Amino acid sequence: MGRCKLCGKEKAEIRLAYARLNLCRTCFTEKFFPNRVRRTVEAYKMFPADASVAVAVSGGKDSAALLHSLREAFPAVQLVAVHLDLGIPEYSEEAERSVEALCRSLNVKLKIYRLKSEEGFAIGDFKATRYGSKLCSVCGVVKRRRLGRIAAELGVDALVTGHNLDDTVESLMATFTAGDFQQLVRLKPVLPAQQPLPRKVKPFYRTPEREAFLYAEFLSLPFSRQKCPYLSGSRSLRGKRLLDLWESEEPGFKYRVLSAFEKLIPLIECSIPQPEYMYCKVCGLPSSQPVCADCRRIEALKSRNAVRT
Amino acid sequence: MGRCKLCGKEKAEIRLAYARLNLCRTCFTEKFFPNRVRRTVEAYKMFPADASVAVAVSGGKDSAALLHSLREAFPAVQLVAVHLDLGIPEYSEEAERSVEALCRSLNVKLKIYRLKSEEGFAIGDFKATRYGSKLCSVCGVVKRRRLGRIAAELGVDALVTGHNLDDTVESLMATFTAGDFQQLVRLKPVLPAQQPLPRKVKPFYRTPEREAFLYAEFLSLPFSRQKCPYLSGSRSLRGKRLLDLWESEEPGFKYRVLSAFEKLIPLIECSIPQPEYMYCKVCGLPSSQPVCADCRRIEALKSRNAVRT
Repeated sequence: MGRCKLCGKEKAEIRLAYARLNLCRTCFTEKFFPNRVRRTVEAYKMFPADASVAVAVSGGKDSAALLHSLREAFPAVQLVAVHLDLGIPEYSEEAERSVEALCRSLNVKLKIYRLKSEEGFAIGDFKATRYGSKLCSVCGVVKRRRLGRIAAELGVDALVTGHNLDDTVESLMATFTAGDFQQLVRLKPVLPAQQPLPRKVKPFYRTPEREAFLYAEFLSLPFSRQKCPYLSGSRSLRGKRLLDLWESEEPGFKYRVLSAFEKLIPLIECSIPQPEYMYCKVCGLPSSQPVCADCRRIEALKSRNAVRT
Repeated sequence: MGRCKLCGKEKAEIRLAYARLNLCRTCFTEKFFPNRVRRTVEAYKMFPADASVAVAVSGGKDSAALLHSLREAFPAVQLVAVHLDLGIPEYSEEAERSVEALCRSLNVKLKIYRLKSEEGFAIGDFKATRYGSKLCSVCGVVKRRRLGRIAAELGVDALVTGHNLDDTVESLMATFTAGDFQQLVRLKPVLPAQQPLPRKVKPFYRTPEREAFLYAEFLSLPFSRQKCPYLSGSRSLRGKRLLDLWESEEPGFKYRVLSAFEKLIPLIECSIPQPEYMYCKVCGLPSSQPVCADCRRIEALKSRNAVRT
């Protein structure tokens, strides 16, 4: 690989094929990576440099790299980490240990919300409901709602999540090929606030997953390497694997897909009727239906338990 | 694979994973395959059942399957096959032998147009021009223009080409990820006539390449298995290979991509300014620029020869 293209001195250790760039560890972790995070936040006007933001931390590589790089890129931003204990045996315990070590080492305030003690259920309990075959999707709904609510209670300017380039491109492709254009136009790096929920932003929107991993690895950030035991055969994992393969044969493919959708979405936005927002009759939070997706799932859980007892 | 799902009697030999369908040879070649061609022609109103059409035949599996299945599906349509001799050593000779055997066996009139004797050049001559690195693209332009002109001279209702599902999906993806939305909205199964050129239609728009091959193979149609010697490392071949892999992991993927674009194109069509059509100052045929793409390439060839002598 030769020398680092940025400093010209150190031995390069990372090849970024899409940019034809070889970098050393130091330039990658201290310049290239946090600079892209800063530029992404600024380009999409995610939050001002003195904002207070809640960062969703799962315990994995993405959120570890996110919390660290945000602090590097925006030293004046007030960060609070929010972690959900999903009650997944072993996996959740390991995740929590990682999150605690991470926040301790970065000196970031950590708020942990436990599904089990706060609401009496764990993600695995959905297996027994009609949502059992779509556990990843239920988990997404449950996390989204609680993270939003906690961010609202904390009164932050934005809720920040670690969705990376690979997550985004996979979602775009899957949503597009499903013909779900209503959802497609919502896959943006910034989702506006819906009172009382703050805006949601994705500073890793242009950061490849591999690089988030390398960043966390090079800096020895504490993160959990466990895979969720419920994840096997997930459709999104398969999509990501196929996109990885495509990227390896056509470097820059993921960025090209992202750019194409960024160009496309404004063209179709006006022709796609967006659902009118209302407030959920059960929880009172913004929803596109009379009862929100989260409350419908919790209802399924409760009625299942009622049948059981 | 068990029994054929259509007749329930014969042993199934073909698995169509996207349709969860196992078929015997007879049902595939006599029913399933020509029925899809008929439905495609009718659904997109390509031509009426008593039309006269020119069928572009390259000598390969697609055009062999196309000519045969069109005759099966539309016995009243008047067919004339048009073949271009591109002057590619060995490859073109083998292609012509196949085309002649095919038309003889199907009793279809064949018109052969020889680049070399009609216009004094062969496709390989473009290697020495500034188009030399994009030979596949030049070849596309050259074929398109001549096939259109010949179809116009024959006075047919439509020019029919063998572009299959795989060709279409690869083109859609490549054009989309290149952000070329102006070209994207033109990737349709029917391109309207532009006087004097007749409409162009693709009856294999929904036919997977693999099935065109199997159809030609099962019916022992004469076709050439040679690969074009200029094709190595073609971008479209790589795209098709990656789409094949995706299809094998997610049966129906190609159809889903096609459907998504069919839904998308009408939404963006009105926001994409289409070039105004004019007539080429050199050849007088419809063009989006003062001198058409074909004449620009021929000009490059001539000036190169002028320099040489």
